Amino acid sequence: MGSVRAGAVRDAAERLRGRVHRTPVLTCGALQRLAGRRLLFKCELFQRTGSFKIRGALNAVGNLVEEAERAGRERPRAVVTHSSGNHGQALACAAREEGIPAYIVVPRTAPCCSKQAAIRAYGATLVPCEPSDESRAETAARVVQETGGVMVHPNQEPAVIAGQGTIALEVLEQAPEVNALVVPVGGGGMIAGIAVAVKRATRLVWERMKLLIEPTAGVGVAAVLSKQFQAVPREVENVCIVLCGGNVDLSSLTWLTDLPGDGD
Amino acid sequence: MGSVRAGAVRDAAERLRGRVHRTPVLTCGALQRLAGRRLLFKCELFQRTGSFKIRGALNAVGNLVEEAERAGRERPRAVVTHSSGNHGQALACAAREEGIPAYIVVPRTAPCCSKQAAIRAYGATLVPCEPSDESRAETAARVVQETGGVMVHPNQEPAVIAGQGTIALEVLEQAPEVNALVVPVGGGGMIAGIAVAVKRATRLVWERMKLLIEPTAGVGVAAVLSKQFQAVPREVENVCIVLCGGNVDLSSLTWLTDLPGDGD
Repeated sequence: MGSVRAGAVRDAAERLRGRVHRTPVLTCGALQRLAGRRLLFKCELFQRTGSFKIRGALNAVGNLVEEAERAGRERPRAVVTHSSGNHGQALACAAREEGIPAYIVVPRTAPCCSKQAAIRAYGATLVPCEPSDESRAETAARVVQETGGVMVHPNQEPAVIAGQGTIALEVLEQAPEVNALVVPVGGGGMIAGIAVAVKRATRLVWERMKLLIEPTAGVGVAAVLSKQFQAVPREVENVCIVLCGGNVDLSSLTWLTDLPGDGD
Repeated sequence: MGSVRAGAVRDAAERLRGRVHRTPVLTCGALQRLAGRRLLFKCELFQRTGSFKIRGALNAVGNLVEEAERAGRERPRAVVTHSSGNHGQALACAAREEGIPAYIVVPRTAPCCSKQAAIRAYGATLVPCEPSDESRAETAARVVQETGGVMVHPNQEPAVIAGQGTIALEVLEQAPEVNALVVPVGGGGMIAGIAVAVKRATRLVWERMKLLIEPTAGVGVAAVLSKQFQAVPREVENVCIVLCGGNVDLSSLTWLTDLPGDGD
């Protein structure tokens, strides 16, 4: 992972001004009582494209365009990534705004879900690969070569990381009292595999906050409700959980409804 | 239905100050484009008890208490209503805040859903009745007599109506440009019977706005997206839809997921 200067995050915030939503920070009495600590929820599920990933994608694409302009080079011919999820959607959206073609590499075996439909709706091209890390990387490299495009890695590209970092700046402006920020870094993608604790946390947010978060966002909520989190010192009084996204495939919700001990 | 003075609504707003949430008004580009008009969404799904009904219930119970105090009478011994839904929950909550017992009459055949669990969680007593309008009214009248309580009708009690009316005052403060307010008056209660258009509208709000509205709220959205609404003059430019509640039973969502033409 490339290193990211604090200055790069401030530059990103400048670049994103007016192009992303300043999502609200909400509270919930019921969840706060369960956690035994003040909780604040940064609602990135309301963000453009349904997740915070648009921050990184817009910053990365904007950065590429600015660099080309500064150097007197032509703009990137294409942007490429491998992600069947929120980063893929975000990059497709960001590229369309700059009028640059986007190619999104997705495993052949990925369910033909609403996220892929959204990627296509943004005018990007889906490129199938085999379901292995090698095939994913190789296919992306091949597409980069064939299109003369630029790879925008979902989580190793410094401009992407700087873009996502703007959430922290925004939270500190909106709620300076925050002592800790909980940001899920994944774990909800594979619905079949997600832990019951995460499903329960996700469902709790649906029921009590009426917010349609995706399970990855539930990971953060499960964390602050866990026994282990009780050991975090009391000085960490105000905890902000980033509800990172709300892209749920509504055609099948059995993962949520078929919970053990349902109806309690 | 009793008549309600505008003054009664302002009195209600005063009585409710600090006791209900000032819920946000949100917008959604995607839905706005579909409607071809500016849409504003008053998010009463975030309201206490998960629906706007707490406004009417708190106002009615508060009014009863104030009247008794003014007349030097004792406070009501109980409040009674028939509603297995949001008004039942709201009255249970409002009564608890005043320390008054609440009795909620519900049909024996009503599904033992999350709303009844919530009513019980507020400390109210559920009283079963037969599934007919007569039995409902008779049972409520009997409970009133037995408990020495006061009936708080879900939609014919003037203090309830005045309380719900505070939504309009609030919307006009938050968005003075609003030309029309769309408030569903029901129709989502019987899930099996709700129209496909309402289900689709509900799902659209889940997908695009990430808001977990209940189907009754979808009724208002379906209305503004309907062909008939296109005939409303263009001068009605800014339309506010009250997303009246978010109390969805998450143990079964097949009514939402099994839509014809799913996956488009």
